[in-house]
Amino acid sequence: MRATVIHAPHDIRVQEVPDPTIQQPTDVVLRVLRACICGSDLWAYRGEAARQPGQRIGHEFIGIVEEAGPEVSGFAPGDLVVAPFVWSDGTCEYCAEGLTTSCPQGGFWGSVGSDGGQGEAVRVPFADGTLVKLPAAAASDDRLLTALLALSDVLGTGHHAAIGAGVKPGTTVAVVGDGAVGLCGVMAAKRLGAERIIALGRHQVRTDIARTFGATDVVAERGEAAVAAVRELTGGAGAHAVIEAVGTEQSMRTAVGITRDGGSIGYVGVPHGSGTGLDLGVMFDRNIALRGGVAPVRTYIPELLPDVLAGTIDPSPVFDLTIGLDEVPAGYKAMDERTALKVLIKP
Amino acid sequence: MRATVIHAPHDIRVQEVPDPTIQQPTDVVLRVLRACICGSDLWAYRGEAARQPGQRIGHEFIGIVEEAGPEVSGFAPGDLVVAPFVWSDGTCEYCAEGLTTSCPQGGFWGSVGSDGGQGEAVRVPFADGTLVKLPAAAASDDRLLTALLALSDVLGTGHHAAIGAGVKPGTTVAVVGDGAVGLCGVMAAKRLGAERIIALGRHQVRTDIARTFGATDVVAERGEAAVAAVRELTGGAGAHAVIEAVGTEQSMRTAVGITRDGGSIGYVGVPHGSGTGLDLGVMFDRNIALRGGVAPVRTYIPELLPDVLAGTIDPSPVFDLTIGLDEVPAGYKAMDERTALKVLIKP
Repeated sequence: MRATVIHAPHDIRVQEVPDPTIQQPTDVVLRVLRACICGSDLWAYRGEAARQPGQRIGHEFIGIVEEAGPEVSGFAPGDLVVAPFVWSDGTCEYCAEGLTTSCPQGGFWGSVGSDGGQGEAVRVPFADGTLVKLPAAAASDDRLLTALLALSDVLGTGHHAAIGAGVKPGTTVAVVGDGAVGLCGVMAAKRLGAERIIALGRHQVRTDIARTFGATDVVAERGEAAVAAVRELTGGAGAHAVIEAVGTEQSMRTAVGITRDGGSIGYVGVPHGSGTGLDLGVMFDRNIALRGGVAPVRTYIPELLPDVLAGTIDPSPVFDLTIGLDEVPAGYKAMDERTALKVLIKP
Repeated sequence: MRATVIHAPHDIRVQEVPDPTIQQPTDVVLRVLRACICGSDLWAYRGEAARQPGQRIGHEFIGIVEEAGPEVSGFAPGDLVVAPFVWSDGTCEYCAEGLTTSCPQGGFWGSVGSDGGQGEAVRVPFADGTLVKLPAAAASDDRLLTALLALSDVLGTGHHAAIGAGVKPGTTVAVVGDGAVGLCGVMAAKRLGAERIIALGRHQVRTDIARTFGATDVVAERGEAAVAAVRELTGGAGAHAVIEAVGTEQSMRTAVGITRDGGSIGYVGVPHGSGTGLDLGVMFDRNIALRGGVAPVRTYIPELLPDVLAGTIDPSPVFDLTIGLDEVPAGYKAMDERTALKVLIKP
């Protein structure tokens, strides 16, 4: 089959690789119907996250089951399914608690020896614990299929941030980061009943989507000016709940600055660097909490799926460029240069 | 009157100062019955926290109301009361939410222009919002009075840490720090139903108190060895809830290391330095939350007071040295040299 392989920073190629096969009785082999490129894939692309030459890449995909191992009970060939960005056994203590990302048997697509989502097919370990079935009819609904693809990562990650930030009905929320996750954070906050949602971002295409998703205010400033603007919008106090969807020291500093005393920062941007962007003294004096991390999206899919199917939420606008598998290298370039927000792949 | 004044690092004196008087109609003047020295007072004593020469010091006290301003409705001369370590107006939005430490009209005892607790008397601003009445009979019960004094800071701060750490019935808790706050954290965790409480500490006098307060295990190791020991005690996973009651980079690093994936660190040790002790990457991968800060103990007193009065909890053993007002400088020296855990002052 053909799949995306990362050879070195900025050297992403689509090439022939071995067809996936059932290796464990709990495996499924999946034909990929939709995949996409994630902001976090860019860290590998830019060389800021280490990869061994030849690793696969891509961790978000929807597909059709081609073959199921003898111990797979929940899926059969022909099933339409969505995969979260981490596989997990579904049986351990962590999976039972919903923290699927801490499953001792879990792993990331594209890690050494595993398939990535940006290819024609994927071997899925622990299929019963990992995959979630979708209605067959969705396969012929292009818009819906795109929306459902967001369940594999960005929508669940935005939801995790909103939960971490403590979004509840009536709260004021601020969102740092105008990428797909930040935008999904806006959507998740709206879904959880936030009264006011302040989106920080300077790219109008993105802030327009933020408004569509539920943002009531947009702050285009950055750094100290952004902090001042959010404080002005909130009577000087800051936001109860802040979603941090970037992961840099600057974004974390901004997040602390715009959080109301006693509020929480839900952080889902993969941290770059240590906690040096956190002024613990300020957080201490103002009782600001930090909650979040890598999102256990498998746990959230059953909760979010009905709303996506019903159309009450539609994250599909975060995908603004659609390409075929051969164009994946160009897709990375577009996202790296920020000419695309999030790239949809139709293999 | 006589009160403790800090002139410079290591220069603490008990001297004559003006008698406090009613300055605002919401003030009360209090005769101090019991006060004490806090671990955080030592930061000023050591010069690690800046003070202007001549500032008063001490923020924990119980007293008898001598005079009440015309707008004070809740207190009258003769009332026995406990003061939390921050005064607050009791009427603002933050006070209504229970975050009394963020009251815009609030302040710390011993800040420039205000009285400190380590003296014969104190002017209490916003008395109705700040003070809590105690049963008059407690004044003649020496042990009980000492236990009640812990409500002014360490017991409420330990409780805040336990809440921040997410202690619930059945949880496994680990406590970093064997000072009075850490020990009260053990007590608070026990009170909230923790099943297992692991106290980290190497001073047997203190860990013996920890066991009395509810610790089921004691870990004497420090740093990486402490992390390994707690992990061994918890089947490799770490503790659901971790109380951080020190505030150094090393203690924060230990706290992260011993927290179970998906768990929380309740931090109440005043942070020294920034977040450089926090490995955000580790916290992110393991979904570890950080919650806490300066404890709004005024809010917790009504909840904790009945248990102290009933004797179901008794924090009085954290006070292991009793002195008169004149001996306060020696009391600081004893705590600085760790020959005393917490010093009780009877002016």
